[in-house]
Amino acid sequence: MYIAMNRFKVRPEEQEAFTTRWLERDVFLKTVPGFISFHLLKGPEREDHVLYASHTVWASHDRFQDWTRSEQFRAAHAGAGGGRSLTLSHPEFEGFEVLQEINA
Amino acid sequence: MYIAMNRFKVRPEEQEAFTTRWLERDVFLKTVPGFISFHLLKGPEREDHVLYASHTVWASHDRFQDWTRSEQFRAAHAGAGGGRSLTLSHPEFEGFEVLQEINA
Repeated sequence: MYIAMNRFKVRPEEQEAFTTRWLERDVFLKTVPGFISFHLLKGPEREDHVLYASHTVWASHDRFQDWTRSEQFRAAHAGAGGGRSLTLSHPEFEGFEVLQEINA
Repeated sequence: MYIAMNRFKVRPEEQEAFTTRWLERDVFLKTVPGFISFHLLKGPEREDHVLYASHTVWASHDRFQDWTRSEQFRAAHAGAGGGRSLTLSHPEFEGFEVLQEINA
């Protein structure tokens, strides 16, 4: 299992616009091999921004890499970067390998 | 749904000791109300550390807060901070509310 996260430092006054952009976007993920789940997350409020994160769980790092090279990936990101900037900086990507799992 | 993450900047030479500490620890989570899943994650390697994260999914922020005030929480963290330091700094806590969910 592999978790891909992108961290977004959203300007406090742009939170509604940021969330709307995500909710209105076309979703191509559901049919991608190895895709398990996607969550849009709202994190802590800091002095000059609010942290948001996209959080996608994949069956493996390989399946995630296949996705980044796919036609669906290009289509899903075609609109990214357009419009006015809602964040302080570019998103910061962090990928995580699962070392231990405990379920209820 | 609520995700509680702690980020650990682990000294590169202490990765094995860090992982072992987690794997050997007693787990009290399984019976805690509202607990859904726990993952220990290995993230990107930076210049002076490797990012690790604990990643716990809860039914709600309220259930997470109940856990932090419980006897099991005190027991689970009784050993934390003991032994030599394996990280560059204290762990950084980030809690996330789920705004959108898509499943395969």
